[in-house]
Amino acid sequence: MTASWHSVAIVGVGMIGGSIGKALRGRRLATRVIGIGRSQAGLDAARRAAAVTDTSTDIAAAADADLVVVAAGVAAIPALLDAIDAVVKPGTLITDAGSTKGSIVAAWERRRSSRRGRFVGAHPLAGSHRRGAAAAAADLFAGRVTVVTPAPKTPPADAEEAGGFWAALGSTVFMMPPREHDKLLAATSHAPHVVAAAVAAATPAVARQFTAGGWRDTTRIAAGDPELWADILLDNAAQVAPALRRITATQEKLLAAIASGDRRRLVTLLTKAKEDRDAVGS
Amino acid sequence: MTASWHSVAIVGVGMIGGSIGKALRGRRLATRVIGIGRSQAGLDAARRAAAVTDTSTDIAAAADADLVVVAAGVAAIPALLDAIDAVVKPGTLITDAGSTKGSIVAAWERRRSSRRGRFVGAHPLAGSHRRGAAAAAADLFAGRVTVVTPAPKTPPADAEEAGGFWAALGSTVFMMPPREHDKLLAATSHAPHVVAAAVAAATPAVARQFTAGGWRDTTRIAAGDPELWADILLDNAAQVAPALRRITATQEKLLAAIASGDRRRLVTLLTKAKEDRDAVGS
Repeated sequence: MTASWHSVAIVGVGMIGGSIGKALRGRRLATRVIGIGRSQAGLDAARRAAAVTDTSTDIAAAADADLVVVAAGVAAIPALLDAIDAVVKPGTLITDAGSTKGSIVAAWERRRSSRRGRFVGAHPLAGSHRRGAAAAAADLFAGRVTVVTPAPKTPPADAEEAGGFWAALGSTVFMMPPREHDKLLAATSHAPHVVAAAVAAATPAVARQFTAGGWRDTTRIAAGDPELWADILLDNAAQVAPALRRITATQEKLLAAIASGDRRRLVTLLTKAKEDRDAVGS
Repeated sequence: MTASWHSVAIVGVGMIGGSIGKALRGRRLATRVIGIGRSQAGLDAARRAAAVTDTSTDIAAAADADLVVVAAGVAAIPALLDAIDAVVKPGTLITDAGSTKGSIVAAWERRRSSRRGRFVGAHPLAGSHRRGAAAAAADLFAGRVTVVTPAPKTPPADAEEAGGFWAALGSTVFMMPPREHDKLLAATSHAPHVVAAAVAAATPAVARQFTAGGWRDTTRIAAGDPELWADILLDNAAQVAPALRRITATQEKLLAAIASGDRRRLVTLLTKAKEDRDAVGS
């Protein structure tokens, strides 16, 4: 199946939104790509990056779209969905790229009976600590996973259509309930972000010039935007807390082996960690 | 100053030792580079990588060298230093590339009065999770820091000479006491290694296909060799434990802000982490 759309609106044209636009244009999947954002400077950057064909600071521009994609911070998405739904043509498919799904999908579903559009939440696992349309890449989603999270009342055809959009950008689509997504991502993204931030913040300033590749890798995501990440962590607090406790408990096991000089136990723990890491690939 | 040597022996021709050899040859700093190792296969790999001109499985080959570099796991280094010292020409400079320094330098110093050679410990901060001479790179040390760790009784001229060797490979040399090195590296390398291993091991297998760049970066060093890392962590346990506790305490602060929904506090903590991370660079 090769899906295509006459006109796609992208609300939020930062690194993710810009990459969606570039992928749509590069793959000739849409004739028009309408970038919608708050700042003209951000929209101009998206235009320079060849991510959009049209720009608007007015959400009403979404009325021209056959498909709307919301690529904004998770805290902003529910209100944006309401605003978009107020202007779209009836039946327009809407999806998003938010890093959490439970609260976003629940906010939509609470008013499902009065919606004009059809919303199916999604999360492309293709973030970065970089920001802005200038960092956008047409191949950002190629070979990556996108999780599509239908609600119980989402018609299967809508979920398929949203999945088809993300697949058309090159990603491998998994379908699961929003809460399941949030539990998995707490383990693979949100709790590791907290750990990376803790390592960065706990390193004395005097030690900084004695860091090498290991420290830089381990802490890289701590350079992400604090406001966006605070919203993600707070929105998914119920799942982040137990995921982080699992990591802390594993740290304590390693520390106990180190402190007691139990080399055999330490090698066993480090070997399991290596096997788990090697199972994912570079 | 451009230092150069007629003949340099490298004991241990893995990724680090092989890179030393390639740097020496690429910069025309040595006429002969004698690779000494336990396995002929490893020595053959070093020869194929153009890291050495001569190879031997006999430590006695170090008798031909004007300078000896030990690039082995930290647990093996004290005994290797004794074996090397038994065969070198009197006055031969010996240095090493071990990730810990306190115990290695102390072991040498305990028998200082009866030594033939002159040992000055060092640690190039240029490791990787990759192994073997096939992963060696001539520019591994270029622009990186090497910490040189003289003991109180080390003649300043010996420390300068060892520093000159590491500087000749392209690295920026810092001099400090062995214990100071071990304290700094606990914060920047050893404790982060434990954290990375904990994140990898605490991630449920079912979640692995929902990892993205953040998880892969944060856990990359967990792919390091479990035996080598167990020895590093055990050797430096006295410094690793407090460094790890600082990280855990910072994690707990972040978790408390998340669990209590204190967005302002969470943004403050994440902003400090971002500033600390940004201070180091990519």
